[in-house]
Amino acid sequence: MSHGDITYSARMGRWEPGAAGRLREAALELYVAQGYEQTTVAEIAERAGVTARTFFRHFADKREVLFSGSELLQERMVAAVEAAPADAGPVEAVAAGLAAAAEMLGSNHAYSKRRHAVVTANPELRERELIKMARLGEALTVALTARGVAAADARLAAEAGIAVFRTGFERWVAGPRSAELATVLSDAMRQLRGLVAD
Amino acid sequence: MSHGDITYSARMGRWEPGAAGRLREAALELYVAQGYEQTTVAEIAERAGVTARTFFRHFADKREVLFSGSELLQERMVAAVEAAPADAGPVEAVAAGLAAAAEMLGSNHAYSKRRHAVVTANPELRERELIKMARLGEALTVALTARGVAAADARLAAEAGIAVFRTGFERWVAGPRSAELATVLSDAMRQLRGLVAD
Repeated sequence: MSHGDITYSARMGRWEPGAAGRLREAALELYVAQGYEQTTVAEIAERAGVTARTFFRHFADKREVLFSGSELLQERMVAAVEAAPADAGPVEAVAAGLAAAAEMLGSNHAYSKRRHAVVTANPELRERELIKMARLGEALTVALTARGVAAADARLAAEAGIAVFRTGFERWVAGPRSAELATVLSDAMRQLRGLVAD
Repeated sequence: MSHGDITYSARMGRWEPGAAGRLREAALELYVAQGYEQTTVAEIAERAGVTARTFFRHFADKREVLFSGSELLQERMVAAVEAAPADAGPVEAVAAGLAAAAEMLGSNHAYSKRRHAVVTANPELRERELIKMARLGEALTVALTARGVAAADARLAAEAGIAVFRTGFERWVAGPRSAELATVLSDAMRQLRGLVAD
């Protein structure tokens, strides 16, 4: 969740400078330049101009540099599903969650694009991403159920939402920086509607 | 893919007796009774009345006893997508894949139910299952693309199909033995249509 010298702060609710942001940027630069496997925490810390001790105050390991934003993403999406209008159907509520994801991730195309390239290039990271997506699906299912959606509908709407998110997000990172993530995701949702209606 | 003393043979294309089937059944019984983590290959082999050497002729390790059917499932689903009528849309072709899955798995509710319980109880197995599902989604995407479906539609239709498969399959194993997997899956597809159309 970093762009240059700023980083997204869950506490502050905005992008801000700081060691965590510099560490994320440094890690990503090294992962892209020399490969994730070949990069050490010591190198990341050195490039960010901090000590390894500081690295470990922010991240459990070099993998978590890439995934520490996932919890926040999930919180935001769940909060948006919960806050959707009472008369919104399950898919409409999930769409509100996708809009929240776009708001959080959409302003940083360059970071997302590079992170995606690093994650897809490494089997262990790909697996980690799959697990995060599965957890996100479960969290959205729970949030929908709490809205009174029947369990069967909740699960399917959440899983369909994840399918839309994954395909839309991948399309966005593969596309030009000028594209709005929110638009790409709502287009993907409309596309799914068209596909299943055929 | 085992039921009592029979096992599904990829080569023969039918359920048949044999060491692999006995090993699968023995493994599942032990995983259910005493837990996956606590079960050794030696115990599985002993229960199946074969040597550990025979075990390793059929399976790489105790985990693969649970997942060796996944490749065959993927082959069957991909073949069904490829064989769908030329004028079938992407979701219709995916539905043909789901029907093939139902044909392969639907006759063995008891096995599927127990296997599902074992897999969901263990984080490592859950992750493995997620990876298999992701690969299946990729394989279906490729099969749809080969039919001339645009890449964006192919990916989304395949992922939606996986969402339908996962939710439908889970519903089926949680339900009574008398329910037809094919019916549960086509109901789930119809349900998705209803949800996204709202």
